[in-house]
Amino acid sequence: MTTRPPLPPIAITMGDPAGIGPELIAPLWRSLRQSGPGFVWLGDPRLLPADVPREIVESPDEALACFAARLPVMPVTLQERVEAGRPDPRHAPAIIASIERATRLAREGNVAAIVTSPISKHVLKDAGFDFPGHTEYLAHLCDVSGAEVMMLVSPHLRVVPVTIHLSLRDAIAQLNTQLIEKIGATLINSLQRDFNIKTPRIAVAGLNPHAGEVGYMGDEEARIIAPAITALRRFDAEITDPLPPDTMFTPQMRGTYDAALCMYHDQALIPLKTLDMAHGVNVTLGLPIIRTSPDHGTAFDIAGRGMADGSSLVEAVRLAHKLAAHRRRA
Amino acid sequence: MTTRPPLPPIAITMGDPAGIGPELIAPLWRSLRQSGPGFVWLGDPRLLPADVPREIVESPDEALACFAARLPVMPVTLQERVEAGRPDPRHAPAIIASIERATRLAREGNVAAIVTSPISKHVLKDAGFDFPGHTEYLAHLCDVSGAEVMMLVSPHLRVVPVTIHLSLRDAIAQLNTQLIEKIGATLINSLQRDFNIKTPRIAVAGLNPHAGEVGYMGDEEARIIAPAITALRRFDAEITDPLPPDTMFTPQMRGTYDAALCMYHDQALIPLKTLDMAHGVNVTLGLPIIRTSPDHGTAFDIAGRGMADGSSLVEAVRLAHKLAAHRRRA
Repeated sequence: MTTRPPLPPIAITMGDPAGIGPELIAPLWRSLRQSGPGFVWLGDPRLLPADVPREIVESPDEALACFAARLPVMPVTLQERVEAGRPDPRHAPAIIASIERATRLAREGNVAAIVTSPISKHVLKDAGFDFPGHTEYLAHLCDVSGAEVMMLVSPHLRVVPVTIHLSLRDAIAQLNTQLIEKIGATLINSLQRDFNIKTPRIAVAGLNPHAGEVGYMGDEEARIIAPAITALRRFDAEITDPLPPDTMFTPQMRGTYDAALCMYHDQALIPLKTLDMAHGVNVTLGLPIIRTSPDHGTAFDIAGRGMADGSSLVEAVRLAHKLAAHRRRA
Repeated sequence: MTTRPPLPPIAITMGDPAGIGPELIAPLWRSLRQSGPGFVWLGDPRLLPADVPREIVESPDEALACFAARLPVMPVTLQERVEAGRPDPRHAPAIIASIERATRLAREGNVAAIVTSPISKHVLKDAGFDFPGHTEYLAHLCDVSGAEVMMLVSPHLRVVPVTIHLSLRDAIAQLNTQLIEKIGATLINSLQRDFNIKTPRIAVAGLNPHAGEVGYMGDEEARIIAPAITALRRFDAEITDPLPPDTMFTPQMRGTYDAALCMYHDQALIPLKTLDMAHGVNVTLGLPIIRTSPDHGTAFDIAGRGMADGSSLVEAVRLAHKLAAHRRRA
């Protein structure tokens, strides 16, 4: 039996300092300090409550040593005062620096994974940030733009939408066999390597009601989706035919697959959030690094008022650690 | 205090005799014989198990008198032998006769409501039945074609899709302000009259992810849905703006409205069936009669094997009775 060194800590980015990101860090540390997984926060230490013991560390290595006693911080310094709930484009350089540094640490193997705190693309846009969101930016930083795939994970369900930030009309127009196949392949690969599922079971959603009812209500199932399924069956995976979308997320059906491959944003996110809003975690597949994030936004409207629910962040850190452990073993 | 006569019984149609409809009738009677509501079954008595006491009745009146002791049947005679699981177009005349008779009894006020057992439109098509389903046929029988609206009711949620049996592409193409307004008005009226909710709270779904994010991902919210909402606000009802579809069915949100008005089939049916597959009830709004049905099909694949779950049928009868009582009081 070989003994392996512990995984390095997880890097958590600052996110938008005016959002709910920073206020969730101290509670997160309190819930994980005994049990782990350990993390290092890449943010401005002045954002932490005064009564939280913290340690400024130079490297992730030092973070694990102090984690049980003090919250480890690799400082990212804000140039302007932060007012909770008031986003300010002048924070953009520090927000971006935190993401870049975390990504670099992950690529160098000095952190096991990164967990990103929520940002607002509107705040960053004025600073020249030209990405629809975190996911695409991380793919860019990792030199794999276009390979990124969004998965949502909850205690009940794993879902991957084939398209994300498109109107429903555009999502239908852009649906094609090659796209479904590419995303399906990334999904299968990630379930095998990161989720440790040797022969993943994939439920593929139809696009139309009743999956088109044999062409009676739409032909995308036969014309676009089925050929992608055929191509994906070359992998060591069990893949369904296109399923009626309304019955594939029932309690009984959910037990029959490891992930659902969905044709549009809401087909994936409605069942996930209907079942569980608090514990959803966003995972980016297709990157050379492991990245998760809580499934909520900056929530400027409640920032700084102690109302934010940190459950999703805790789940995001736990899942990132689990995926990193699996990937190391794979 | 005035004493009112009890409501007449509920008429239950035979449905396809080769499907799971008939086998659910004896268990239904056993679960309701003590508590009610009473019903009369319009089917072929030979389909009932031999050990079930039944009474052939001539009118719904007689049904209530015997209901605690015997299952009341107004016979509809099949001309051909029935083999469970083997649909046969020769059953079509009797299937249709049962529906027509139940509808007539309801229109004459001799039954309080009708509950329809599942049919297969493919079986009926060869007999010249030219309707997409029960709902449209009932509207035709009641001379209100086009007024029918489908609502799905579960213990967690009431949903009304604006379009039903269309491909997703066609559903988007056919979405228009007038249609949303018409269906919304029927919904409000029915919630007031049949569900006894004086000032109904309606959650209106957007069409696009994040309800379009202020036009960033689709403009149907502003262009098509919002004008319908404005028009519907003339009623005594509380109506939301277009909501992000993925977060409007969370446990927290579900408590804030009486029904969700949805823009397409799966937007309504995914959350409903994800939460509860067994107890869903289909209600047709906009008819002069009250009609509910279990939210399952003929299930030819399991018919006659004692595997069918009758929960939805029980709920359908209970809900029909409740709606009839409210409507009488209204």
